[in-house]
Formats: sequence, structure tokens, C-alpha cells
Amino acid sequence: MADNSVEEIEREEEDYGLDAALVGQILDAVDAHDTARLEILTEPLHAADIADLLEQIGPAERRDLLRLWPRGIDGEVLSEIDESIREEVIEYLPREMLAEAVRELDSDDVVDLIEDLEQAQQEIILGALDKSDRAAVEQSMAYPEYSAGRLMQREVVAAPQFWTVGQAIDHFRREADDLPELFFDVYVVDPSYKPVGAVPISTLLRSRRDVPLAQIMESLSEIPVDMDQEEVAYIFDKYHLISAPVVEPGGRLVGQITVDDIVGVIHEESREDILALAGVSDSGRHGGVWDMVASRLPWLLLNTLTAALAVSVIQGFEAQIAEVVTLAVLMPIVASLGGNGATQTLTVAVRALASRELSAVNAVRTVSREMIVGVVNGVVLAVVTGVAIYLIFGDLRLCVAFAAAIVINMFVAAAAGALVPLALERMGRDPAVSSAVFVTFVTDFTGFFAFLGIAALILL
Amino acid sequence: MADNSVEEIEREEEDYGLDAALVGQILDAVDAHDTARLEILTEPLHAADIADLLEQIGPAERRDLLRLWPRGIDGEVLSEIDESIREEVIEYLPREMLAEAVRELDSDDVVDLIEDLEQAQQEIILGALDKSDRAAVEQSMAYPEYSAGRLMQREVVAAPQFWTVGQAIDHFRREADDLPELFFDVYVVDPSYKPVGAVPISTLLRSRRDVPLAQIMESLSEIPVDMDQEEVAYIFDKYHLISAPVVEPGGRLVGQITVDDIVGVIHEESREDILALAGVSDSGRHGGVWDMVASRLPWLLLNTLTAALAVSVIQGFEAQIAEVVTLAVLMPIVASLGGNGATQTLTVAVRALASRELSAVNAVRTVSREMIVGVVNGVVLAVVTGVAIYLIFGDLRLCVAFAAAIVINMFVAAAAGALVPLALERMGRDPAVSSAVFVTFVTDFTGFFAFLGIAALILL
Repeated sequence: MADNSVEEIEREEEDYGLDAALVGQILDAVDAHDTARLEILTEPLHAADIADLLEQIGPAERRDLLRLWPRGIDGEVLSEIDESIREEVIEYLPREMLAEAVRELDSDDVVDLIEDLEQAQQEIILGALDKSDRAAVEQSMAYPEYSAGRLMQREVVAAPQFWTVGQAIDHFRREADDLPELFFDVYVVDPSYKPVGAVPISTLLRSRRDVPLAQIMESLSEIPVDMDQEEVAYIFDKYHLISAPVVEPGGRLVGQITVDDIVGVIHEESREDILALAGVSDSGRHGGVWDMVASRLPWLLLNTLTAALAVSVIQGFEAQIAEVVTLAVLMPIVASLGGNGATQTLTVAVRALASRELSAVNAVRTVSREMIVGVVNGVVLAVVTGVAIYLIFGDLRLCVAFAAAIVINMFVAAAAGALVPLALERMGRDPAVSSAVFVTFVTDFTGFFAFLGIAALILL
Repeated sequence: MADNSVEEIEREEEDYGLDAALVGQILDAVDAHDTARLEILTEPLHAADIADLLEQIGPAERRDLLRLWPRGIDGEVLSEIDESIREEVIEYLPREMLAEAVRELDSDDVVDLIEDLEQAQQEIILGALDKSDRAAVEQSMAYPEYSAGRLMQREVVAAPQFWTVGQAIDHFRREADDLPELFFDVYVVDPSYKPVGAVPISTLLRSRRDVPLAQIMESLSEIPVDMDQEEVAYIFDKYHLISAPVVEPGGRLVGQITVDDIVGVIHEESREDILALAGVSDSGRHGGVWDMVASRLPWLLLNTLTAALAVSVIQGFEAQIAEVVTLAVLMPIVASLGGNGATQTLTVAVRALASRELSAVNAVRTVSREMIVGVVNGVVLAVVTGVAIYLIFGDLRLCVAFAAAIVINMFVAAAAGALVPLALERMGRDPAVSSAVFVTFVTDFTGFFAFLGIAALILL
């Protein structure tokens, strides 16, 4: 019976991942304290699915599940769990189970696991490791956060230049237990352990035993140990790398980075950019309401301040508004269109900077093109809205003031949207984080000032 | 002398990619029609760098470079070039050089190259291929765009279940020329060519010759040939895959997808989401001013329409504004804060939907949390701005109207920001593309209506 129902679950399930029905059944099993059923239900799941399950359920359900079934959380699940709930999960695991889980992991996974934990929790996990593993982890932790040194695994497969294919394969068979679980390239090293070439293992497999490695090795893209992970991801993507050797300042091989780590970095970086543009910090993801408030309120407060500054320009035109109240009706449109135009340009610019399509080589041409596009869009919008305003309000001067303000604001929006992120980048700041608030202020201010100012000049 | 200056260039250059100085020297060489110097300058560059060069320079410079040096564009460069300038580049290449370049490529690269070209250009390229290569490309093109079938390469390494490690390696050595250039897994197949397991080639390398493949093979994540590429990328990321077999509906192995193709898909998808949220279509990237206008104007026109609808609510309160002009000064702040709050929630929701952190399992909890966060943020902002307004204008009723409107609009912003993308997703639409315009309209409308309405009730 039990087996039968599991099969049904598997059939109901989508091919990959969890579905709501399975989550419901798991939570029912937790409620009933039915560990046996829990194990049957979770048996077909990958560690990544169990991590997803823990992320998707609420904090109280998570606590109940962890109390009932701590041994479901092995090393693989631990390293898959999002960092925002990792501390919470670790707290609920009995000390000896945590130690056992951590000992299963490679050094780079342990580093990834502990780097965002509090000191006390770090100590617990480090204490569970062998002396040599602990030393390896601590050495990696000495490299700066987000550097190649943190990302790399120390386990590499290296071979001297003078070896043949046969010697290499024989050596790998003998030393099978010391090799990394998965590897893609054999690094050919000189006597001082500097990498001089790489042999993809598919090349190794199809070459005759007597061929020297030096004859089939390919050129390398070496990664300095202190390179930023964003730069590493850029190089992997651009040159379609599967793995790359990491070298110390002297050129000595100290580890390798593989493409599966890079997929994670790419996701993280694009996630950070998209959230930063919207003014959300990345902290409050799986946290409670207060974490979410903390991740969003600072941006809203900053925007309140800039909005207050921008509307202060309206105060100078109170007399005109009292006389022609239609000005108050139309002015938000001018500001809003400017804001939208600026967001478009800004997003394209931030994105192009991140992917290095926008650089010193083409900055001037890009900014000029953006300004031309801003004017063209402005003119089209001015004609469309101008005609509409004339038809609705029958006032040619109002229509002229509105149309002129639109063109001016769309030009300013394009200029600010392109120049502000470029300037921030050149100042060494992240353009995704701080551009939007500047640019929105500029287009709000310009929108109100241009429209009300021109209207004051020609209407009254 | 020439050699010397090349060395200097290499030293000046950043470790990876192009820099402005080198681009300048290349363009000088093009101006001087100095093909020899051009070849010396570009010799150390990777195909991806040459593609970058072509993307970064202007259309006229591109034309001159291609006319002077068509043979610099080999197959690899062609497949690296961004699709927005690919047609242009192909047009400048002499027919026989294009044919030669294309014949170097694997079938999946040819598909990637031609899928966005016009019919006539597709024919030219297909005509340059051997009969069997052409058939393979045409077969891939028969799968829907953005499907696993389009993404996969047809070249796979398969072995029967009963083989040993030694038999497999001997076979690969004999058939070396027919193997894909790079591969990571050997797929173990049953007699009907259905994959039953995978052996990572690093496992193959370290296993003894007499071990049967069936004993060391690992379980598979099969990709159906019609699966959407976004789904494929999700599976690769979640389960940390390096390669996966692609199967026909009957289960037969027809090709494989490798992680390096997935890195490109991940970039593309996150790029599309970020641009869609800002209301930019992806077309006008390297195109001229008119392409850029076409990629942005539709969104601006749509926003003009919704902005006009939203401000129409102001018209109903013209009498009140004429009496208390301060209302016109303060109302844009209410609308703007609502817009910012909605953008935050919307972006987080779109992102969570894309990464599947937001699903049917936690939709209700997520939306309720967002609404609570909206109210909390609203109350904090209401208190801060309320106090400021009382201090500046000394009017308690104005301050109450403003504070109440802020709380209402922040709540509505959170609800709309979370519910609209969820509803669009459930309707099978892309939430990134169409959410923002709805949500902004809702917060503009609510901001003006709540503030002016409450003010009209209590002030006058």
C-alpha cells in the first residue's frame, strides 16, 4: 500500500522538483509525527528539492520538520539551502548530525556553507572537520569574499609536462581516491607547479597512450586568486570555459574553478542587479516581515526625500496653478513620462555595463545615441499628447507648453539615464545600486519645472 | 620593430579582452588599409574578442573593417557575433569565405547562427554545407524556437550497457574522429537506444579497465526534446548538471545539451526579464537610432495613456486644488511613493516566479506577507512625512489626509505588486513584460484619489 501511494505521487509530480500536492503530504506526515512516511515521501527527492521544500514552507513548519527529521538534512542538502535560512536550519540540527553532514563535503562547499554564518556557528562546523580539512577551509576563508580564492576548489588534477597519455591514465587509476569527484581538465604543470596548458579529459580519452601531454594540451585562461567572482564569471561566459586553473601571484597552481560554480555566480549577480534597480536589498528573502521591511524601507525613505525636493519646485508656481488648475492635472504626466524614459535608458545602460558591451570604446557614441533617441521619442510623444490636449482643452498655449516640456524632459531623461550609471561606474560604485534615485529626482524636477515654467511664461 | 610593438600592446592590454587603445590602433590600421598590421594586432585575440570589437565599433567602421579583412571572420567569430549585427556582417562577407567559415562549425552552432537570419541568407548558408550536415541542421530547425531540440547538439557519445571501461576507451581511441570535440559524459544506452545511465568521463578515467559501465553509471536527468530552454536552464542550475541527454517522445537518445550552452540561456533570460520590467524590447541593441526608438516608444505611448487615465481623477478635484494649492504640491509624493513600493514588490515577485521560489505552495503566504510589509512601510512613511508636513505647513488636517493616503497607497501597491504578476503567470503570460504598466496605473490612480478624496472630505 505504502509503495503504491509513493508511485502515485511520483506519477502526479512534475518531472522535476516539488509540487504543491507532495508538499502538502509531507507537511501532513510532519503533523502526524510519522517519520516513516516522511522518509518514503522524500526518498525520490534530490537534495536540491529538499532544500527547496525547506525554503518554501513557513518558519513554524520548518521547525517542526527539522525537529522530527534532523537526519534528513545531510551535507548535500545543507549546501543547497539558501543562506537566508541556513543559520536557522543549523540551529535545529543536533551537533553530531551537523558534524557528520559537514564531513561529507568538499572544501569549497564547506567554505560556501560557513562564510555567511555567525562566528559561533562557524566554530561548531570547523570543529567537526579533520585537522587538514579545517586548515584548507581556513586558508580559503583568508581570501577576500567574492574572490576567485573563495570560489575555487583546492582539489585539482595536475600532471608534469613530460608525461604521456598512458602514464597519466595509469596514475589516475592508481590514485583514484585522491582525485576530485568530478573533473574536466588535466592541468599540465612545469617543475615549479606553474600551469602551462590544459588537456580536456575527452581529448585524453581519445588519444593514443604514447602521445605526450605536451603535444595535445591547449592554451589556458589562468584566474588570479584575488580576481573578483564577477570578472571570473565574465571570462567563463566569454570564452566558454568548463574549468580554469587558479594561480597565486607567483603563478603557482593553487586550485580550480568549474563552470557549475559559475552558473551560481551568474544567477546571483543578475539577481542583485535587478533587485538593486528596484531599490530592494537582497537580505530579506526568506526572512520574516521585519527583514523585508528592513530591505525596502531605506530606499522608500530616500525617495521620499528626493520626491519632497522635486515637488518643492511646484510651490514656486502656486499662483499659476490656482489660476489654471489644469496645470496640476497635466504636470504628473510630464514627470511620469520622463521617469519611464529614464528607467528605460538607465536599465539598458546598467545592463550593458554589466555585460561590458558599454565601455570606454563606445561610451561617447552610446550616450549621444541615447540623447538622440530621447529627443525623437520626446517629439513623437509631444505631437501625440499635444494634439490630444488641444482636442480636450482647446487651448493652444497649454498644448505648446506641455509638448515643449515633454521634449525637454525626455532629452534630460535620456542624458541622465545614460550618464549617471557611467559616472558611477567610473567612480568605482555599482551603477545598479545608486542610479535610479538620482535619475528619478532629475526627471521629476525637470518635468515640473519645465512644464510650469513654460506655462507661466506663455499662459499668464 | 613590428614584433616589438605587438608585445607592447599585449603588455598594455588587460589580461582579458579588448581595451580602448587596441581598438584605436585596429581602427587606424583599417583607415590606412594596412591588412598586415591588422593581422598582427588581432593575432593574440580570441574569436570572442573579435566579435566584441565588431559590436563595439560604429556601423561605418564595421563596414570598412569587413571590406578590408573579410577572412578575419572565421566560423568561430561568426558564431560569437551578437545576432543584432549578424545579418550585417554576413552581407559583407564574400560567398566563398562565408561557406568556408560555416563548414567549420558543429550543427548546433550552425542552427544558432542561422535561426534569426532572413530566408535568403539562411539559404546561402545551408547551401554551403554538406548534404548530411544540411540535413542535421534542417532537422534541428524543425524543433520549436527556444526548445531543447534547438539548443542540443546531435553529436553524443553513447555506449551499450554490457561494455567495460576498457572496451569503451578502446572504442573512443579507434573512433576518435567521429567523437564530439568536447564531451563530459558517456551515455549508457539499452538496445533500443534509450539512455539508462551516464558515466562522467572523469569516473571512466579513474576506473579499472575491467569494470562494467553499468556498475559505475549514475542516474540521469533526461531532457525531452520539446522542453522550453528556460526549463532546461532551471534543471541544469538546480541539479548542477554538466551535460544531459535529450530524448524523443519515445525515449530514444537524440542529442545532448552541455552546460556552456546553458550559461548563454541564463544570461539571455535574465537580460530579457530586466529589460521587460523597464519596458524595453530586446530588439534595438546594436541597431541604429530607429531600432532603439522602436524598442522603447510603444511602452512610452502605453504609459502616456495610463498616465492620462490616472490624472483624470485629479480633474474631479479641481475646485479643491484651486482653494488649497498645497494639495497639488503634495499629491505627486503620494503617487510616487506608491509607485516605488509597487516596483519593489513587483520586482521581487517577478524574480521569485522566474526562479520558482514563488509557487502555488507559498503564494498565499507570500502575498499576505507582502501586504503586511506594505502596511508597515506605509505607517512608518506616514509618520515621518506626516510630522514633516505638520512642521512645514502647520495644518493638522492636511497632515492626516496625507498620512492616511500614504498608508492606503502603500497597501494597494504591495497587493497589486504581488497579485498582478501572479495572475499573469497563471494566465500563461510573462509577468515581467506586462506587470509594470498595470501596477503603476493602480498606484497613480489610488495615490491621487485617496489623497484628494480624503482631503476633500476633511479639509473643506
